[in-house]
Amino acid sequence: MNVYSRKGEAALIRRIRSELQTPAPAREPRPRNFIDDMALLTDDSQALLWTVDMLMDGVDFRSTEHDWYDIGRKAMAVNLSDCAAMAAQPLAALCAVSLSNHLAQDDAVNLVRGAHGFGLRWNCPIVGGDTNSWDQPTVIAITIAARTESGRKPVCRDGARPGDLIYLSGPVGGSILGRHMAFEPRIETALAINRQLAPHAMIDISDGLALDLSRVLEASQCAAVLDARALDALTHTDAQRLSVRDGRPAREHALHDGEDFELIVMLPPNADPAACQALGLHALGRIESGSGVVLSDPDGRQTPIEPRGWEHFQ
Amino acid sequence: MNVYSRKGEAALIRRIRSELQTPAPAREPRPRNFIDDMALLTDDSQALLWTVDMLMDGVDFRSTEHDWYDIGRKAMAVNLSDCAAMAAQPLAALCAVSLSNHLAQDDAVNLVRGAHGFGLRWNCPIVGGDTNSWDQPTVIAITIAARTESGRKPVCRDGARPGDLIYLSGPVGGSILGRHMAFEPRIETALAINRQLAPHAMIDISDGLALDLSRVLEASQCAAVLDARALDALTHTDAQRLSVRDGRPAREHALHDGEDFELIVMLPPNADPAACQALGLHALGRIESGSGVVLSDPDGRQTPIEPRGWEHFQ
Repeated sequence: MNVYSRKGEAALIRRIRSELQTPAPAREPRPRNFIDDMALLTDDSQALLWTVDMLMDGVDFRSTEHDWYDIGRKAMAVNLSDCAAMAAQPLAALCAVSLSNHLAQDDAVNLVRGAHGFGLRWNCPIVGGDTNSWDQPTVIAITIAARTESGRKPVCRDGARPGDLIYLSGPVGGSILGRHMAFEPRIETALAINRQLAPHAMIDISDGLALDLSRVLEASQCAAVLDARALDALTHTDAQRLSVRDGRPAREHALHDGEDFELIVMLPPNADPAACQALGLHALGRIESGSGVVLSDPDGRQTPIEPRGWEHFQ
Repeated sequence: MNVYSRKGEAALIRRIRSELQTPAPAREPRPRNFIDDMALLTDDSQALLWTVDMLMDGVDFRSTEHDWYDIGRKAMAVNLSDCAAMAAQPLAALCAVSLSNHLAQDDAVNLVRGAHGFGLRWNCPIVGGDTNSWDQPTVIAITIAARTESGRKPVCRDGARPGDLIYLSGPVGGSILGRHMAFEPRIETALAINRQLAPHAMIDISDGLALDLSRVLEASQCAAVLDARALDALTHTDAQRLSVRDGRPAREHALHDGEDFELIVMLPPNADPAACQALGLHALGRIESGSGVVLSDPDGRQTPIEPRGWEHFQ
């Protein structure tokens, strides 16, 4: 959903959110929308959720560099990652495009083929859309609907509590070196987490570990302490390669780079470590009372972490 | 849904449609998507339908001429009209925008306010979205979900049969003079038609009477004969004003102008004329076997009508 998108201006987005909180009639969908990765559409035994993400040429991808098939794949994958964040199974997608008039017909077909083909891997076909063309760069917006598994609630952002353990589904940082176009949404992991581990809160890393974690903390009204050694162990080799190139510490890339699309998972203190390990989850820290994120060094020194995200191509 | 959008190139859209007909697993949603104004999301006792429409500055509206509030209203209204076409009650919307960096914050807020405010009039709040900005003209994509009334099926495009009567919900042509920004989606009329008149097929006029009717005919594999006198009586005064300006016959505007957003309704031959009149429906012609649209003059002369639509701003 990304109403606090990395690409938007925070102040504007706050105004838009407050505009949209005009009291609606007391009926579905519930007012808890706008704080999660997906909005609630219907609240049956299997909740139906939906979300939209819009990608623009020159902002989220570069048609001069990336293959149109891969661009379509990414447009679908960012939405599938939102499904993972809520522990929801994708159901179907709509695809709206404004194609640049400079685009060859084969490129346009490859864009759709990339999105639809990747969706089908997750049983999530494109079932409708809107095809337009114009003289400006290409824009693609995919809307996706998903269901929780039978009897399971979606995992939201606001359920973290002091004492919870923070886990990551994989190493982070440096996705700009290529992974941001080719990541695998963590849907299966997320569904298994929801089945086995009674998660309190979850989010996918679209805008950066620190920034996305801070959204969970804001929604849950608590603080996080990250273990510096654990973070270093979870720093992707891409973050290290990027650090060599740009001179910024790899740890900074791990904290602030966007588009890793790994899950940040808040589990109750008694979560079974063996089950966590079996699901590929790595301990990163814990939730405390208060606000904000701090990094705790082995010597006990605590450094506050600013909740800023990486902006691609800007 | 507008997969045959007036803005797209027909050949490309055919290729994209065939790409998307890659066999998906045998489950919901059904393969009948891509022929109606909305796609089927779930098929319960009250079918859940959804659709997306993307509007671009300079194509569907002009920010140099139109107020941002009215632009937002239109972005919502075109989707609500798709709900009317299927006789579905709007439920909720998602709104994705790529805002031009030149846009003032107040304008962006007015855009959202126009869309959300108009949605609320139909009990259809915006419940989520994606807010982005870039250096190009503003793009807005609204996705809407809607339900049929309890026990009612959505009205599709492929149910017209020889002998059916063709009705229009109001006069058409010349919407470019202003109505294309301020039309009222015919939701209440559509729900009442579905309750009272057992319609065989329905569509809203987004791309032009002749073009949208031809979509019904193509899906239903039949032909239409329009009564020229009835068409003249249903030609909007805006079409006449436009005719004075541009020298093209008002009848041509009635047949080919887009964005009237009136309903074309195909009713069984025994439809109650009094009920039609009470709902504001006007007889326009009949469905026959064969293909294509012809206009029948009082003297019996029949003129084939080309299924082309009006392209705004091009």
